[in-house]
Amino acid sequence: MDKLHEECGVFGIYEGSNSKLAKTVYYALISLQHRGQESAGIAVNRDRVIRCVKDLGLVSDVFNEENLDKLGECNMAVGHVRYSTSGAVSKENAQPMLIKHLKGQMALVHNGNLINSYELRNELEKKGCIFHSTSDTEVISYIITGERLKCGSIEEAVSNAMYRIKGAYSLILMSPAKLIAARDPLGFKPLCMGKMPDGGIVFASESCALSSVGAEFVRDILPGEIVTVENGEIRSDLSHVKKDSKSSLCIFEYIYFARPDSKIDGVFVHDFRVKSGISLAKSHPVEADVVIGVPDSGLDAAYGFSLQSKIPYGIGLIKNKYIGRSFIAPDQTERRNMVRMKLGAIESVLKDKRVVVIDDSIVRGTTSAQIVKLLRDAGAKEVHMRISSPTFLNPCYYGTDIDSRENLIACQHTIPEICELIGADSLGFMEVDEALEILKDGDTKCSCSGCCTACFDGKYPTEVPQVSAKERFE
Amino acid sequence: MDKLHEECGVFGIYEGSNSKLAKTVYYALISLQHRGQESAGIAVNRDRVIRCVKDLGLVSDVFNEENLDKLGECNMAVGHVRYSTSGAVSKENAQPMLIKHLKGQMALVHNGNLINSYELRNELEKKGCIFHSTSDTEVISYIITGERLKCGSIEEAVSNAMYRIKGAYSLILMSPAKLIAARDPLGFKPLCMGKMPDGGIVFASESCALSSVGAEFVRDILPGEIVTVENGEIRSDLSHVKKDSKSSLCIFEYIYFARPDSKIDGVFVHDFRVKSGISLAKSHPVEADVVIGVPDSGLDAAYGFSLQSKIPYGIGLIKNKYIGRSFIAPDQTERRNMVRMKLGAIESVLKDKRVVVIDDSIVRGTTSAQIVKLLRDAGAKEVHMRISSPTFLNPCYYGTDIDSRENLIACQHTIPEICELIGADSLGFMEVDEALEILKDGDTKCSCSGCCTACFDGKYPTEVPQVSAKERFE
Amino acid sequence: MDKLHEECGVFGIYEGSNSKLAKTVYYALISLQHRGQESAGIAVNRDRVIRCVKDLGLVSDVFNEENLDKLGECNMAVGHVRYSTSGAVSKENAQPMLIKHLKGQMALVHNGNLINSYELRNELEKKGCIFHSTSDTEVISYIITGERLKCGSIEEAVSNAMYRIKGAYSLILMSPAKLIAARDPLGFKPLCMGKMPDGGIVFASESCALSSVGAEFVRDILPGEIVTVENGEIRSDLSHVKKDSKSSLCIFEYIYFARPDSKIDGVFVHDFRVKSGISLAKSHPVEADVVIGVPDSGLDAAYGFSLQSKIPYGIGLIKNKYIGRSFIAPDQTERRNMVRMKLGAIESVLKDKRVVVIDDSIVRGTTSAQIVKLLRDAGAKEVHMRISSPTFLNPCYYGTDIDSRENLIACQHTIPEICELIGADSLGFMEVDEALEILKDGDTKCSCSGCCTACFDGKYPTEVPQVSAKERFE
Amino acid sequence: MDKLHEECGVFGIYEGSNSKLAKTVYYALISLQHRGQESAGIAVNRDRVIRCVKDLGLVSDVFNEENLDKLGECNMAVGHVRYSTSGAVSKENAQPMLIKHLKGQMALVHNGNLINSYELRNELEKKGCIFHSTSDTEVISYIITGERLKCGSIEEAVSNAMYRIKGAYSLILMSPAKLIAARDPLGFKPLCMGKMPDGGIVFASESCALSSVGAEFVRDILPGEIVTVENGEIRSDLSHVKKDSKSSLCIFEYIYFARPDSKIDGVFVHDFRVKSGISLAKSHPVEADVVIGVPDSGLDAAYGFSLQSKIPYGIGLIKNKYIGRSFIAPDQTERRNMVRMKLGAIESVLKDKRVVVIDDSIVRGTTSAQIVKLLRDAGAKEVHMRISSPTFLNPCYYGTDIDSRENLIACQHTIPEICELIGADSLGFMEVDEALEILKDGDTKCSCSGCCTACFDGKYPTEVPQVSAKERFE
Repeated sequence: MDKLHEECGVFGIYEGSNSKLAKTVYYALISLQHRGQESAGIAVNRDRVIRCVKDLGLVSDVFNEENLDKLGECNMAVGHVRYSTSGAVSKENAQPMLIKHLKGQMALVHNGNLINSYELRNELEKKGCIFHSTSDTEVISYIITGERLKCGSIEEAVSNAMYRIKGAYSLILMSPAKLIAARDPLGFKPLCMGKMPDGGIVFASESCALSSVGAEFVRDILPGEIVTVENGEIRSDLSHVKKDSKSSLCIFEYIYFARPDSKIDGVFVHDFRVKSGISLAKSHPVEADVVIGVPDSGLDAAYGFSLQSKIPYGIGLIKNKYIGRSFIAPDQTERRNMVRMKLGAIESVLKDKRVVVIDDSIVRGTTSAQIVKLLRDAGAKEVHMRISSPTFLNPCYYGTDIDSRENLIACQHTIPEICELIGADSLGFMEVDEALEILKDGDTKCSCSGCCTACFDGKYPTEVPQVSAKERFE
Repeated sequence: MDKLHEECGVFGIYEGSNSKLAKTVYYALISLQHRGQESAGIAVNRDRVIRCVKDLGLVSDVFNEENLDKLGECNMAVGHVRYSTSGAVSKENAQPMLIKHLKGQMALVHNGNLINSYELRNELEKKGCIFHSTSDTEVISYIITGERLKCGSIEEAVSNAMYRIKGAYSLILMSPAKLIAARDPLGFKPLCMGKMPDGGIVFASESCALSSVGAEFVRDILPGEIVTVENGEIRSDLSHVKKDSKSSLCIFEYIYFARPDSKIDGVFVHDFRVKSGISLAKSHPVEADVVIGVPDSGLDAAYGFSLQSKIPYGIGLIKNKYIGRSFIAPDQTERRNMVRMKLGAIESVLKDKRVVVIDDSIVRGTTSAQIVKLLRDAGAKEVHMRISSPTFLNPCYYGTDIDSRENLIACQHTIPEICELIGADSLGFMEVDEALEILKDGDTKCSCSGCCTACFDGKYPTEVPQVSAKERFE
Repeated sequence: MDKLHEECGVFGIYEGSNSKLAKTVYYALISLQHRGQESAGIAVNRDRVIRCVKDLGLVSDVFNEENLDKLGECNMAVGHVRYSTSGAVSKENAQPMLIKHLKGQMALVHNGNLINSYELRNELEKKGCIFHSTSDTEVISYIITGERLKCGSIEEAVSNAMYRIKGAYSLILMSPAKLIAARDPLGFKPLCMGKMPDGGIVFASESCALSSVGAEFVRDILPGEIVTVENGEIRSDLSHVKKDSKSSLCIFEYIYFARPDSKIDGVFVHDFRVKSGISLAKSHPVEADVVIGVPDSGLDAAYGFSLQSKIPYGIGLIKNKYIGRSFIAPDQTERRNMVRMKLGAIESVLKDKRVVVIDDSIVRGTTSAQIVKLLRDAGAKEVHMRISSPTFLNPCYYGTDIDSRENLIACQHTIPEICELIGADSLGFMEVDEALEILKDGDTKCSCSGCCTACFDGKYPTEVPQVSAKERFE
Repeated sequence: MDKLHEECGVFGIYEGSNSKLAKTVYYALISLQHRGQESAGIAVNRDRVIRCVKDLGLVSDVFNEENLDKLGECNMAVGHVRYSTSGAVSKENAQPMLIKHLKGQMALVHNGNLINSYELRNELEKKGCIFHSTSDTEVISYIITGERLKCGSIEEAVSNAMYRIKGAYSLILMSPAKLIAARDPLGFKPLCMGKMPDGGIVFASESCALSSVGAEFVRDILPGEIVTVENGEIRSDLSHVKKDSKSSLCIFEYIYFARPDSKIDGVFVHDFRVKSGISLAKSHPVEADVVIGVPDSGLDAAYGFSLQSKIPYGIGLIKNKYIGRSFIAPDQTERRNMVRMKLGAIESVLKDKRVVVIDDSIVRGTTSAQIVKLLRDAGAKEVHMRISSPTFLNPCYYGTDIDSRENLIACQHTIPEICELIGADSLGFMEVDEALEILKDGDTKCSCSGCCTACFDGKYPTEVPQVSAKERFE
């Protein structure tokens, strides 16, 4: 139910000859729109000259036939959708970031938060660098262009920069002649590669973007890997790839962020969610008449819960698809509430039934309470809520926007208290171990050897930053 | 899959005292948005003075905090969402239609097409009437105001007008002091009544709009009934209600148009669709590994098909919710296609499976062919398509926008030919009788005694107009 | 200084063959923009089908390459710019008014207010007519289409209608096959005819619109004349033209409304204004060092004052041309004032000088007081204000928006009092007789034999309406 | 006639306590709008935190009540209007430029072009600096922040930076606690200081902006001077002020750019222009019946020509004030032309007259030819054109956008040839020496000792850049 925010989706394409790639990027970004709705941008490279269109708004707000057409023919392009996790929404922070430096131009798109950006900014500013934005992308740009002055190629500069920037990043960089994709050594954020029917190479945050543009999935970029495309050839630099170490893909990609038709690090997102439901049915069983999911992200787990529990699956809630960005949310003071606008309860499915309802997470608890109320108003005799994620207890430093501790209901209350607060008859959360167990399952063997679960269990795979992004700029 | 268009949704509210009703109407229209996305409007009545805001666009495009606030406090209001079935999209045709006449002001919202509007326009023009728009709403306004000059009250004028206007209409009329809802004697279009917690009265095209504003469903307006609210009292005029005659609710309300959480003339839309799937599984059985629905309108029937056939239900297609009005559709010439942008196939559900896929209708067949291709590309071994409606063979004169015969695939081809054209392994359509059988089912007894199925079987419940709306104005 | 508002500018063009006339109308409307900045519209006629684009805003806001292009080729077109003198700004009142009636379509543009529209509306509503707008244009449309049913041609219908509508109107009507221009028998509002280089016929409120589209001025339309263009032929109906009676052109066309390069009823607007200055120098002489005009409309009279008085003409005030519609006017509470934003005083022209400043009118007096202050702040030793119009004392019923009596400074104060209130050293207004004398001057012989001066002297050339437009609709 | 473009207007204000200064800056920018219509921006400083709103468009497009209000209270603010002289119109280049650096924040606005920006960019990029924009402002920001790291205060950094940046600049810099205005040592661009009634200090490109906000003119900033306002105190650093050397104010400020009510370096712009007309009447006398000016910038010189020649001054051309940014210019292929839209000729002033027409400059000659034609069409018997500037023969490197030599008519043709090309009966240009003579006139003694006239005579007061801005980025 739209409670957490991922910060970005990235896409890049390299073709052998010039064509109208901006439109291809447009379609890819439409498929990645769920990863960020704040700003969108596309940069194209024609004959080593890079041009860019970006603005606040949805992909379909920012782009139209006219500006896509004006971007013209090109042989490389990158695109970005953004949700900002620090500071105010701002045009300055929109990506791609376009940079003019000594060796030419560069367009950078990136997903993830650094943990040492504060230190790096300080260091850079001491050397006389000036910053236009508050984004980590500008820090990364500086580090890369700084390294570029000392070494022979842009990919070498990226590799050197990776020794200095720490944290989560999946980035795509377009130089005058090369398209480079790089993923941080712990693999916090997804990044995959595909092939166009005519041989072009694409990179994307999620595989669903490949399908939408007709590309074939080739493979995930490895944590730490740098892939360079130049003159149609692909080179892989594995020097940052750590053998035998655990990787740290954000588990929320599986739980909530990613589109169910995407496959990330070898795991189908839909399958993970169905298995979450199966696991929940084992760990938190209940007698009931129907299992329903909160659309859209609770449906897969509800289906799994039904499979395991043998309680019939039902379609008990439908989602109003016309609640967009310009929707005027009801005041707190009005009787009507947001959930009632977003969701419709199907009375014939719920009336006089004992209902299991599956949602993907509980953040503040208010939405859950409204859902329970909606179901009871539609006649549900009992409402058993099952949550396909563990309780949030810790902040994320890698790019996921989790509420502050005061607002996280699980930081303030025990599970029985939450159950009472939201008015459910019973409540169960998935455990961290259950989630990790799913990833070990034979069918869904993960290419990377682990996930970051710090927001649940506090086990941060890196040092923790001293100064948060918010503190710095607000 | 968005192939047919209903023309309108209507909403009206009457309260005992002045309050900011425009916002209530706004929320109701958001819940009726699926019935029309071309224009939206709200008219409010304060102290007998009617004011209106309307424009082309979605409800959330047309309205903002500022213009809702400017509409101010009032004790009555009506609202409308529109999809135009004749002529070009035009501001002149947006509703509510606001009229100044001898006895005061009037705001009218209406859903449905008349069959004698051509004759009525001619007759009125001969008397010196002039028309600003091409809509039936203006014709109805003239007839009602004409009758108003001859009789003692606006509700009497509505009743007299109903002897002259023929065809489909569910209308809500706001006069200086009254709110009046009327439904044509054959009940082509839905219309229901609800009650606000504080006693206010509401009318809406669908019951889902009642829930969204916190109103309780009271009952459907009977075919031919006129309900007048004045000084908080409700009066019903049943003089146009035909006892014992069959009613003619558009069957497509159940099949496709209405929201699944609505209840129309005693039947839950969701239930009708689930039973369609059950019926299809009986009439067109097939051996398969998984049943999936084309989201959103094919999901309920897929669920029913699975219930009956015991073939597991699966979530095999997901819909991109960011394909909005400003989305730039791919050119015909581009390799990429619209279905690939709108739908994502979940490979792990489909790979190496025999798949039954349920859609609500086939109009031209191109979309169906793309869906079959999408499923096969995701690894489906067999694709069996089942359609939860009969084949379209005839035009609709009551307000549903069906393609011309040249474009209707079922007018040009047999079912086996269609199956081949779309590339499916088998294809089955629901029969008209199956649909009518569902309505007789004990659980879903329809309050009206029949449905219009003319687009399938050519049995028009009224005369057929000589001159179509399109011919007149184009 | 922008104190009074004219309500409209009209334009029409008839060509022998189809071409992109919408753009010609666009340029004409740009030249008539000073006559109305609230809404703009163009209707085109191609093969008897009329299409229209109109909206609130300036001509250059409403029209763009795209919508002009979509209007396509046509052989007739009309256009309109509007300033509304009654009720709120509203899209419904924008012109051209497009009407569908028994005999076909009609587009009407018009300038002026009727004095019997209240009675006509009542009469029409009694017959069952309904009104969408509050404008006189809709009343005229009804009267004409009503007459059309009784007679053989549209021009005959216009002639018959002119026996029933009373007041001020210059109108252009486009029927499927004809373009008709008509002017009320008293000639309140200007209307002239021109010829395109290729033989096309144009009608316009002012001759400046002819120049801008490359047309040659042919003649003014006579008060009461109806000119019909059909198949390239021009017919004139003089049956409403009153021989020997005085005509009543609004004198404010000469004083303020019209563009100085226009010629109306035989008089060059610029010449009238120069002669006003000459007359003022005779009737209100003063010793001074420099004569300046308040730009733009006071410049011509200042020049005349200088010619007669031999006091040097100076450029002492300049106007900021970037104060547009979206300019945020200073609050009353702010020290800064509107005049200081709009006008810049040239110190070197004013310092230590005795200054005569000419403005076209004084309405409330606040602007004049700010101008006097601005001049003194720039160093003027004495400020003598001369006004090239008489004092406003009466309301206008023919389409000029004059403030209510409470706001008219001349209704509340004597001229010496006003002089003191605005802080001038002396003040002089032109007398009504002086204005009328100018029109009798040999050089500027007016084709019509008089002007309406009712707002100054209360001599209304018609009956006065009982119910004002404002009272009816507010 | 709008042929040349100045690049910018700057404004800054420092108040003792917090108030809504954004609105004051807004009014100042409206008064400076003639200096740049491409983008506008305001940055405010509240408690050392700088916030900014800027965008493409006119001041009144970019700002509205809402965003001005959101900028809130502050004790310092700067603003900018821009016309870009190099590269495409771009949001990145809009000012104020907001910079985050080691010592805090900085907002910079500036007018003028550097001649060594190419070299400085190269040098900075070699050190690892990256550029987001193509503007000189970013170069200046880098140089200043770089110097800031090495010295004790921001004003010292500005002073040090001024040893490195060469060319034309009038800049205002807002640091967390100071407002600093600086003008290049040759004084190419104007910059003056004023005082608010409450003691606040303002800086502006032109004195007209002071008047509009109610400030009193104090003095011009000297070429090379740095003025720092801190804690309400004003300090002046004269270390870059060159005694005895000639200054180089762009002469086009007097001829065309500046508003006639401004006073720059001791000279009233209006006076300069009147004296240009007087000088032209001496150097290029002619027998004629009337002298008219091309509005707006030719009016002052026409007035001067009349004074000297005793030929009567006339108002023969009027300007359409509704030709704004969104005006659709006529195609080259259309008969109608741009001049006919922009200007109206007053026939009664011109008919059968020998006309002297004064314009400020001739660039390509096409506009002049259309003006001559317009006057002849209005009946002028002879047309004698006088130009109140010398012929353009050389490019400007300091920020004025002069066409390339191929387009400059004076580079391709002799004056007699130009006279024939534009169809005039005679043609005369002011000489460079005449212009310089005016500045020596007792009444208009210039505070700076000279003007840059390089575009006329090629005498560049600095070295000339090797690589032009256009070459670098296009």
